Amino acid sequence: NGFSLTSSQRKQLLQSPGGAFGSCRFKLPDDIKHPIYKRCIEVFKAHNIRYFLYNGGGDSQQTSLKIAQASQYYDHPTHCIGLPKTIDNDLPVTDTCPGFGSTAKYIAVSTQEIALDVVSMHQTSTKVFIFEVMGRHAGWLAAASALGKKNKQDAPHLILFPERTFKSEDFLHQTASTVRRYGYCIIVTSEGIRDAQGNFISDANQTDAFGHTQLGGVAAYLSNLVVSELKLKTHFAIADYLQRSARHIASKVDLDQAYAVGAKGVELALNRQSGVMVTIKRLSNANYRWTLTQTPLSRVAAKERKLPSKFISANGYGITNSARTYLHPLIQGEAYPQYRHGLPQYLAFQPEFVPKKLPDWNDPDV
Amino acid sequence: NGFSLTSSQRKQLLQSPGGAFGSCRFKLPDDIKHPIYKRCIEVFKAHNIRYFLYNGGGDSQQTSLKIAQASQYYDHPTHCIGLPKTIDNDLPVTDTCPGFGSTAKYIAVSTQEIALDVVSMHQTSTKVFIFEVMGRHAGWLAAASALGKKNKQDAPHLILFPERTFKSEDFLHQTASTVRRYGYCIIVTSEGIRDAQGNFISDANQTDAFGHTQLGGVAAYLSNLVVSELKLKTHFAIADYLQRSARHIASKVDLDQAYAVGAKGVELALNRQSGVMVTIKRLSNANYRWTLTQTPLSRVAAKERKLPSKFISANGYGITNSARTYLHPLIQGEAYPQYRHGLPQYLAFQPEFVPKKLPDWNDPDV
Repeated sequence: NGFSLTSSQRKQLLQSPGGAFGSCRFKLPDDIKHPIYKRCIEVFKAHNIRYFLYNGGGDSQQTSLKIAQASQYYDHPTHCIGLPKTIDNDLPVTDTCPGFGSTAKYIAVSTQEIALDVVSMHQTSTKVFIFEVMGRHAGWLAAASALGKKNKQDAPHLILFPERTFKSEDFLHQTASTVRRYGYCIIVTSEGIRDAQGNFISDANQTDAFGHTQLGGVAAYLSNLVVSELKLKTHFAIADYLQRSARHIASKVDLDQAYAVGAKGVELALNRQSGVMVTIKRLSNANYRWTLTQTPLSRVAAKERKLPSKFISANGYGITNSARTYLHPLIQGEAYPQYRHGLPQYLAFQPEFVPKKLPDWNDPDV
Repeated sequence: NGFSLTSSQRKQLLQSPGGAFGSCRFKLPDDIKHPIYKRCIEVFKAHNIRYFLYNGGGDSQQTSLKIAQASQYYDHPTHCIGLPKTIDNDLPVTDTCPGFGSTAKYIAVSTQEIALDVVSMHQTSTKVFIFEVMGRHAGWLAAASALGKKNKQDAPHLILFPERTFKSEDFLHQTASTVRRYGYCIIVTSEGIRDAQGNFISDANQTDAFGHTQLGGVAAYLSNLVVSELKLKTHFAIADYLQRSARHIASKVDLDQAYAVGAKGVELALNRQSGVMVTIKRLSNANYRWTLTQTPLSRVAAKERKLPSKFISANGYGITNSARTYLHPLIQGEAYPQYRHGLPQYLAFQPEFVPKKLPDWNDPDV
């Protein structure tokens, strides 16, 4: 078939970011009788597909569950296995999700680096730096920014979590008092912070020069707020895809788990399991020990796990020791890709598709 | 004195980003008879300061030149040596500037990583990605984004240089045709691109919800433009300080040059030279060989070197082979910092100042 790889390509694939088989944003309909499921199983039958392994977050587990249900409904037993994979780390049951540890490491390292830059120049230039990271509904990644923080005066000074309501007056007060105390202030914000009415802060700055919807990040909004209200010089960075594709600074623990989770998925499928997601179970914090187990897809499908309250410090702008204890093992170990002439040897994978066996089909909904 | 370091601290300092001695944005007056110069030399005399080594870009070399002139004018011979150091790489005479190679490497690697992320999901999600990098007046860093590009279809597809006028119609045309051809489009933009009237594009989107000046980046502006005019899903990242503090992915060549440039500055000062800047001279492209020499500060002070036309491809959106030949050696070699418990061991350096010998002084201009 079209997916066979040489052993050197396999090695290269192991050290490449992105989804080699592609990725999608596609929501299956709720009704299992919808014709798309019939078609899907017809395709499975035509190509004799008996195993379906699918990775992603809560929505992707929902997809796996639907496929498992459809394969029963249309009487084509398929072994459907969900694999956790989301940098957002917001799946329940599993200890963590592959992708998260590496992104967390990138954010923890970058926050320290940015802070050293700001420290060097704060006396005559930038006083406030805002670093926007992903996390539309859960603040796991923002929390990871504090992993390099040892003392109160270390960066980040303020973390803005989607789990906490953003109150601009308090934010400005905290920022100003941090600058008074230390001379500068490093802020890490989740992209998904909201005001008391539940509106995304990034929506507050909606209209561009054309009168069209503005996509600008929260960081730009917060930066404007600090400039306008506190008259302090600011800079900001928006990490966006930089954070989730930064294979060059991946966590070894994360890579090990990603590989093990995939292998376990294959094992479960070959053992004729279906309708389950592989989960990582933490056995100990000290010298982080973990094992793999499984959970019914129904327990994780379309669910999300927010940062628990005990992980957020009393004032709402930092993390607690229990958050550190949880997060710390996940960023351990460096696993550099191989470099050639100064650049990582990433594989740009071009999957070849097997020839179609069925005639074209048009989704009646499209 | 206050700057002595243990050997382990020195080692740690070598692998830490930021300016350990601090940095400033401070422009000295043109008139050498301004009282600030008199005060400055009085401080030098009081502390018996005979050597002045100062690193930075064109403005900093101007500062070094002024101090050299003032020390002659006030008859306190001081050996003033300029050291090149700017990620913008825009100093003339020297082959390159320490700081540039590492930032260039970060940008080249990040562009490849982002592209693999977009490739995986472009069929059902993000079609256009915009990556904003530094370079207010010169496109050296934007140019470096193409170092991983081997074929026409590889990222980045469009580079926007400050050396070329930004024309929105042509930009939209190029973006749309790239998406038609490859399915997606990766764009790298310098922060300092301008329109035909010479206005910064980032100024076009000036007013925020408060009616105050907007600091938002060019990337947000371009993203809005693509969404509005082409109806394509976009994402963008703004690297800002991330790019210039990313010690975790520094270029070995760059670090070697930074160290050698500093050592050469000390050597020149001890040899009683003054009024010169250390320069790097390229001896060969193949197996990049270089040596150190010097140039009068007057040749580099307040000057800037833009990307030469022969480095920009005919359509204005890419780089030429001569650009590659120049840039390629500067990103060679990895020089990872030491990690402990998952994080680099960066030194947060707290310089202690020697006690003041002179009474306070107030700048009459302030």
